[in-house]
Amino acid sequence: DFVEALKEVHPAFGISEEELNQCVHNEIIKFSDNIGKIISDGKLLVDQVKQSSRTPLVSVLLHGPPGSGKTALAATMAMSSEFPFIKLISPENMVGYSETAKMSMIHKVFNDSYKSPLSVIVVDNIERLLNWVELGPRFSNPILQTLLVLFKKRPPKDRRLLILATTNFGQSELKDLSMSDCFNSKIYVPNVSELDSVNHVLEELKLFNDDERKQAKSELEGVELNIGIKKLLMIIEMCRQDAENSENRVKKFVDTIKANNTSEFINN
Amino acid sequence: DFVEALKEVHPAFGISEEELNQCVHNEIIKFSDNIGKIISDGKLLVDQVKQSSRTPLVSVLLHGPPGSGKTALAATMAMSSEFPFIKLISPENMVGYSETAKMSMIHKVFNDSYKSPLSVIVVDNIERLLNWVELGPRFSNPILQTLLVLFKKRPPKDRRLLILATTNFGQSELKDLSMSDCFNSKIYVPNVSELDSVNHVLEELKLFNDDERKQAKSELEGVELNIGIKKLLMIIEMCRQDAENSENRVKKFVDTIKANNTSEFINN
Amino acid sequence: DFVEALKEVHPAFGISEEELNQCVHNEIIKFSDNIGKIISDGKLLVDQVKQSSRTPLVSVLLHGPPGSGKTALAATMAMSSEFPFIKLISPENMVGYSETAKMSMIHKVFNDSYKSPLSVIVVDNIERLLNWVELGPRFSNPILQTLLVLFKKRPPKDRRLLILATTNFGQSELKDLSMSDCFNSKIYVPNVSELDSVNHVLEELKLFNDDERKQAKSELEGVELNIGIKKLLMIIEMCRQDAENSENRVKKFVDTIKANNTSEFINN
Amino acid sequence: DFVEALKEVHPAFGISEEELNQCVHNEIIKFSDNIGKIISDGKLLVDQVKQSSRTPLVSVLLHGPPGSGKTALAATMAMSSEFPFIKLISPENMVGYSETAKMSMIHKVFNDSYKSPLSVIVVDNIERLLNWVELGPRFSNPILQTLLVLFKKRPPKDRRLLILATTNFGQSELKDLSMSDCFNSKIYVPNVSELDSVNHVLEELKLFNDDERKQAKSELEGVELNIGIKKLLMIIEMCRQDAENSENRVKKFVDTIKANNTSEFINN
Amino acid sequence: DFVEALKEVHPAFGISEEELNQCVHNEIIKFSDNIGKIISDGKLLVDQVKQSSRTPLVSVLLHGPPGSGKTALAATMAMSSEFPFIKLISPENMVGYSETAKMSMIHKVFNDSYKSPLSVIVVDNIERLLNWVELGPRFSNPILQTLLVLFKKRPPKDRRLLILATTNFGQSELKDLSMSDCFNSKIYVPNVSELDSVNHVLEELKLFNDDERKQAKSELEGVELNIGIKKLLMIIEMCRQDAENSENRVKKFVDTIKANNTSEFINN
Amino acid sequence: DFVEALKEVHPAFGISEEELNQCVHNEIIKFSDNIGKIISDGKLLVDQVKQSSRTPLVSVLLHGPPGSGKTALAATMAMSSEFPFIKLISPENMVGYSETAKMSMIHKVFNDSYKSPLSVIVVDNIERLLNWVELGPRFSNPILQTLLVLFKKRPPKDRRLLILATTNFGQSELKDLSMSDCFNSKIYVPNVSELDSVNHVLEELKLFNDDERKQAKSELEGVELNIGIKKLLMIIEMCRQDAENSENRVKKFVDTIKANNTSEFINN
Ligand SMILES: Nc1ncnc2c1ncn2[C@@H]1O[C@H](COP(=O)(O)OP(=O)(O)OP(=O)(O)O)[C@@H](O)[C@H]1O
Ligand SMILES: Nc1ncnc2c1ncn2[C@@H]1O[C@H](COP(=O)(O)OP(=O)(O)OP(=O)(O)O)[C@@H](O)[C@H]1O
Ligand SMILES: Nc1ncnc2c1ncn2[C@@H]1O[C@H](COP(=O)(O)OP(=O)(O)OP(=O)(O)O)[C@@H](O)[C@H]1O
Ligand SMILES: Nc1ncnc2c1ncn2[C@@H]1O[C@H](COP(=O)(O)OP(=O)(O)OP(=O)(O)O)[C@@H](O)[C@H]1O
Ligand SMILES: Nc1ncnc2c1ncn2[C@@H]1O[C@H](COP(=O)(O)OP(=O)(O)OP(=O)(O)O)[C@@H](O)[C@H]1O
Ligand SMILES: Nc1ncnc2c1ncn2[C@@H]1O[C@H](COP(=O)(O)OP(=O)(O)OP(=O)(O)O)[C@@H](O)[C@H]1O
Ligand SMILES: [Mg+2]
Ligand SMILES: [Mg+2]
Ligand SMILES: [Mg+2]
Ligand SMILES: [Mg+2]
Ligand SMILES: [Mg+2]
Ligand SMILES: [Mg+2]
Repeated sequence: DFVEALKEVHPAFGISEEELNQCVHNEIIKFSDNIGKIISDGKLLVDQVKQSSRTPLVSVLLHGPPGSGKTALAATMAMSSEFPFIKLISPENMVGYSETAKMSMIHKVFNDSYKSPLSVIVVDNIERLLNWVELGPRFSNPILQTLLVLFKKRPPKDRRLLILATTNFGQSELKDLSMSDCFNSKIYVPNVSELDSVNHVLEELKLFNDDERKQAKSELEGVELNIGIKKLLMIIEMCRQDAENSENRVKKFVDTIKANNTSEFINN
Repeated sequence: DFVEALKEVHPAFGISEEELNQCVHNEIIKFSDNIGKIISDGKLLVDQVKQSSRTPLVSVLLHGPPGSGKTALAATMAMSSEFPFIKLISPENMVGYSETAKMSMIHKVFNDSYKSPLSVIVVDNIERLLNWVELGPRFSNPILQTLLVLFKKRPPKDRRLLILATTNFGQSELKDLSMSDCFNSKIYVPNVSELDSVNHVLEELKLFNDDERKQAKSELEGVELNIGIKKLLMIIEMCRQDAENSENRVKKFVDTIKANNTSEFINN
Repeated sequence: DFVEALKEVHPAFGISEEELNQCVHNEIIKFSDNIGKIISDGKLLVDQVKQSSRTPLVSVLLHGPPGSGKTALAATMAMSSEFPFIKLISPENMVGYSETAKMSMIHKVFNDSYKSPLSVIVVDNIERLLNWVELGPRFSNPILQTLLVLFKKRPPKDRRLLILATTNFGQSELKDLSMSDCFNSKIYVPNVSELDSVNHVLEELKLFNDDERKQAKSELEGVELNIGIKKLLMIIEMCRQDAENSENRVKKFVDTIKANNTSEFINN
Repeated sequence: DFVEALKEVHPAFGISEEELNQCVHNEIIKFSDNIGKIISDGKLLVDQVKQSSRTPLVSVLLHGPPGSGKTALAATMAMSSEFPFIKLISPENMVGYSETAKMSMIHKVFNDSYKSPLSVIVVDNIERLLNWVELGPRFSNPILQTLLVLFKKRPPKDRRLLILATTNFGQSELKDLSMSDCFNSKIYVPNVSELDSVNHVLEELKLFNDDERKQAKSELEGVELNIGIKKLLMIIEMCRQDAENSENRVKKFVDTIKANNTSEFINN
Repeated sequence: DFVEALKEVHPAFGISEEELNQCVHNEIIKFSDNIGKIISDGKLLVDQVKQSSRTPLVSVLLHGPPGSGKTALAATMAMSSEFPFIKLISPENMVGYSETAKMSMIHKVFNDSYKSPLSVIVVDNIERLLNWVELGPRFSNPILQTLLVLFKKRPPKDRRLLILATTNFGQSELKDLSMSDCFNSKIYVPNVSELDSVNHVLEELKLFNDDERKQAKSELEGVELNIGIKKLLMIIEMCRQDAENSENRVKKFVDTIKANNTSEFINN
Repeated sequence: DFVEALKEVHPAFGISEEELNQCVHNEIIKFSDNIGKIISDGKLLVDQVKQSSRTPLVSVLLHGPPGSGKTALAATMAMSSEFPFIKLISPENMVGYSETAKMSMIHKVFNDSYKSPLSVIVVDNIERLLNWVELGPRFSNPILQTLLVLFKKRPPKDRRLLILATTNFGQSELKDLSMSDCFNSKIYVPNVSELDSVNHVLEELKLFNDDERKQAKSELEGVELNIGIKKLLMIIEMCRQDAENSENRVKKFVDTIKANNTSEFINN
């Protein structure tokens, strides 16, 4: 029975953890309430898979703009499940793979998961898995079809699976690719858009002292903010270079944040 | 002669039954009269194949929106025929197959059926069998052509075949793919659209007690309903998680049903 | 010389007859004068091949809507020729063949025919031979080119060949595919469009007694008719199922015929 | 030197003659002055190749509507040259060849010609050699490129070559395919368009006696004529079948000629 | 050092000369001042490669209408350089080569050139090298990319290379193919457009005596001229055939020149 | 630890230096302040990689018009880093490589870099690496996808990587190819547009004496300038040829600079 089966799974199944840790390179900073909400939604989905025998398969899509933190959040949710099988499917591990090789690697991860009573699979960066490029558009239809089937295929009796996929795709691409009806739940991961969030991040990363931070904050008052957490971290590190001159550093930070809105952020 | 031939078929032919049972994971709930009508239409077609020697081939298409229950209904019809040969052709069993492998697997099932005096073949999810994606559109023309020929090819003398195909395709895609004239009969499987149907399903699944159900019903009064039975079942199970707090659960159910109309149903 | 050569051909050449018989599963019902005209036109063409040495190659296209009886008529003409070589090229015998395999099979039939003094080749269902689909459109150009050349290639000295091809293609597709100038003669096979024809068919198939037939006829008075003979036969057999209740049967027949005009004919 | 080289060529080179004769199955009927003009133009080109050392390569295109007699005229010109090397490149000899096989066969004929002091190559039916179909359009670009180069490639020192190509292509397709500037000379082969020409052909083929012919002529007075000689010959042979009844035969002939203008000519 | 290296190159390197001579089959006639200007521009470029160590790579494009003399002029420039390495890359030597074979042959010529201190490579007829056809358009992108890189790749230290490419492409195709910025210099080779030029050519080729030439000239007075030198030579040779009748010959010459403007020049 | 690891890297890693030197064939002339600014921006990025452990990957794009000096500047930045691993990925070293070979070569360079504690990779000429051509457009999607992943893939723990890529692509192509969000920083390399810059370059290259330079300058007063440094150097060398006549040389220089604006610069 189910509880028995759970015991038989070897801890070796959890080997993707290292890779998943890589995905959260710079920790998760709780810079806004929404981050907390996303993480607790993740917990509810994990619980549902554990408890409802009527829904042995739950699939979730984390979507949002580039660098908003989708991968780090999905990895965090997956690891917090403590399921015996947690695997990452990522384009970074498939550079140079042929279409067929990619497909069979994806397929293998799902087949392996069907052997564990409880599994999580993180499918990172769907657009890169599909070799998607807007021009054309071009993409690998065989890989798309593989995902479309596997995302909906019920695991065998007494097996349960949580799928956490991430993507930059917007609604229209998802519809074009027959992916709109493919997930049971969608979670939106937004950019940083509040000045308080920026302040929170600056505090955590200790780039400025309190005065500097206050100055930066006052200079950004009223500026429309819309920046991925990943880019924000990069900008902070770039500014850290001008070590000698604190005034300059604050100015550089503020200017770069502003320039970001016009899509170029250092030199143009 | 025919009766004699029937006897010779080994019961082993019926091995797809397990897979077909999988398709009806959560039973068939008779939430509206239409469900009964669809099932009895299925019986008439089964009878025709058994009895009319002039029509040794009858092909039927079950079509309708995603998650409306097409696969579960086709599987139920097939199993209720009690023909000696009942097989399922499903994209879920062909993940990672090459186009050629798919074609020969499909072909083999039809060829095998020609050896049984009475056969049913369920061809599930034509759009996935074809690797269809609207963008392009792209699809496997060789597999399409294989289906177009096999759906119309009369079985050999003294053999009879019922084909039950399912699809999300609408009329225009069917026409574009030369599939409009390909079936002898079409059966439409609609979404749940009546409040009574929702009520019926809630009763069967025992999520709420009578008061809660009444409350949910009254709050959904006047709301336009258009939801697949599959999604409805998933929403019910998600709500079951908030076990402690019944008020909350009713609210969550009602909100999610409403949100469904705007195509996102948990978090956006 | 010619007469001598005729004698040498072995009767074994006529082996396609069985397959051709399959094509006329339900006999030819002479439901209108046009059927007779088509068959006698076929005879004239057979005679011309036999008698005129200036036209050793005659090619004919039977075209018309789906299910109008093209294949059955072509097979009937071919068999009535009594030529020593009568072969059928049909997509039903090539399911799963590669493009190359199809081409060489087609080529072989023509090459074999060049060894018989008098030959008929039935080339059935050109659109399926070409893997044609309107969406795109897509089709096998190598097979098309093979047909375009073989349909015009004169057989060697003292050999004569009649080609009977069938298709659902309309004039515009034929033109697009360079097939307009490819045949010496074209024969149109129309749908059933006269109430008298329907009556004739009902009489032959003995679904109703005289009263019932009269009733059906009166209810169909004034209804625009446009239905393939194949579909008409299917509808009749479907109605035969409701054996107990004659009134019901007539109604079902009439309703289905009417529904046919709106392209769905059982349940929608 | 040149004269010496001519002697060394073995008569075996002329083996395509049989095939070329096939192309003129029904002789050349001089039904109008234009036919004579075309043939004498052909002679001038043959002479130029023989005599001018500055133009060792002359390429000619015979173009015109389907069945106007292009192939028969090119074959006739080629054979009348009496050059030691006369070869036919025809799609009819390449059915089922791969693109590569076609290319190397074409290439071989040209290479062989470079060994003879005087050569003619007939390149029949360019559109079929290219696997051309208007839909798309699709065609074999590798074969096109092979022809574009070979049609302009000067033979080696002391070798001379006349190329006679035929095609149904009009000016716009020739331009699209970079073939407009590819030939040194173009000869248009028109359809039969004069009543006198029809009369001339009828006389030669002896379908009617003088009265019948006169009657046919008077009935066709004022009818716009535009018919390929090939089709005209086919119609005459079809009419020859109704042997018993002369009146009927004249009527059938006249009707079919008229029907031809509306592109269907027997039954529609 | 450089001068030393020059001595070591074997004269065997100059083997393409024979082929290059073939390209100038009918000598260069200096029918207008522009011809002289083009040839002296060529000399300047040759000198620059010899003398400036800062520009070890100079690439030149000769472009103009079909048959204007591009290939003959490029070959003449190349041979007059007297560099130890002079090679021709021409589609005529690659008939039937695969794309890959073409690419490696092109690559080999460039690699070989890098071994000679001073080299010229003539890349003839870019559009044919690319298998270009306007319809589509279609072309070999791998070959294009190979050329784009090789045309800009600096030879190794102490090696110098002059590239002379020819093409019919106009500015818009060059731009579409990323070839606009690819050459250091472009030379336009125009058609014959002056009556004096025609006269000059007639004089050289001795088709007419002085009176005839004068007559031809007066009849062409005022006619717009725009004809490739290659075509002009062909027309002259065609007219030479009517040897008996001089008047006729002049008339034929004048008529054909005029007809040329309407793109057909013998018979249409 | 990090400092220790640095020591272990063998100097052999620096072997690309020779190739990189080739890229700066004619030194970097500081003809405007912007050149200095670009070089110092490069230094800051090098420092960031060395010092910030939070940003182990920094990717930079140098973009600008053809011949503006992108490759020379990227090579200069890379060499000035003095990192133990400096490699060039350039289309010039991949002529004739298959798509797969290119991909694995690119992949190998990145994998090798992951073994060095500090690395720079110069990815030159993205458009040629992708086999990009505007017509279509066509490009290698597999190579694009490889780059998109590798440009964002974090090196393993304790490894740091600076990527310097160059391209002619404008913003719209970058967006179409999903490359807009792919780099941490973008540096624009403009054409020469100031008369003073031209003057500076002339001074360095010593084509003219002071009077001549002054004359050239005054004649170019008011002329709109927009020319790549690469083309400017080529024009100067071309003018150097007319050694005898200084007046002529100045005129030729001025005329060619002016002609450059109309995109042809010697002869048209
Ligand atoms: N609240 C947060 N949510 C997510 N990531 C965070 C948060 N706070 C800090 N981070 C850090 O920000 C980075 C987010 O990058 P991540 O790769 O997850 O973004 P992404 O949306 O997946 O980007 P891409 O669109 O490129 O795939 C990580 O390094 C992560 O450690
Ligand atoms: N009346 C019903 N009809 C069909 N399915 C029902 C019904 N009542 C309950 N169900 C359950 O609902 C689910 C329907 O899912 P099913 O896969 O058949 O839908 P579908 O239309 O085939 O979906 P898809 O469009 O994704 O292929 C099954 O689990 C089935 O057991
Ligand atoms: N007069 C008739 N002409 C043709 N077929 C008839 C006629 N009367 C009865 N039939 C029966 O009708 C059926 C016609 O089907 P057939 O396959 O020939 O149609 P089709 O036009 O070839 O169809 P499709 O367009 O699908 O190829 C056959 O079973 C044949 O026996
Ligand atoms: N004056 C004529 N010119 C050409 N052919 C003639 C003439 N008189 C009779 N014929 C006969 O007419 C037929 C012409 O057919 P042919 O195949 O040459 O036409 P075509 O233009 O090549 O046709 P297609 O466009 O199909 O290639 C031949 O059988 C030939 O013998
Ligand atoms: N002044 C001239 N310039 C060039 N060619 C000349 C000249 N005078 C005579 N000729 C002759 O004219 C012919 C020109 O043909 P060539 O093949 O060079 O033209 P092209 O422009 O390369 O043609 P294409 O566009 O077909 O490649 C050659 O035979 C050459 O000997
Ligand atoms: N300030 C400068 N910046 C860049 N290059 C310079 C400068 N001064 C002189 N040069 C020289 O100019 C040339 C610039 O050519 P380079 O190949 O770098 O241009 P590019 O922009 O990469 O060209 P392409 O667009 O063709 O790739 C080199 O030879 C370089 O030595
Ligand atoms: Mg991510
Ligand atoms: Mg289904
Ligand atoms: Mg048919
Ligand atoms: Mg022909
Ligand atoms: Mg040329
Ligand atoms: Mg560069």
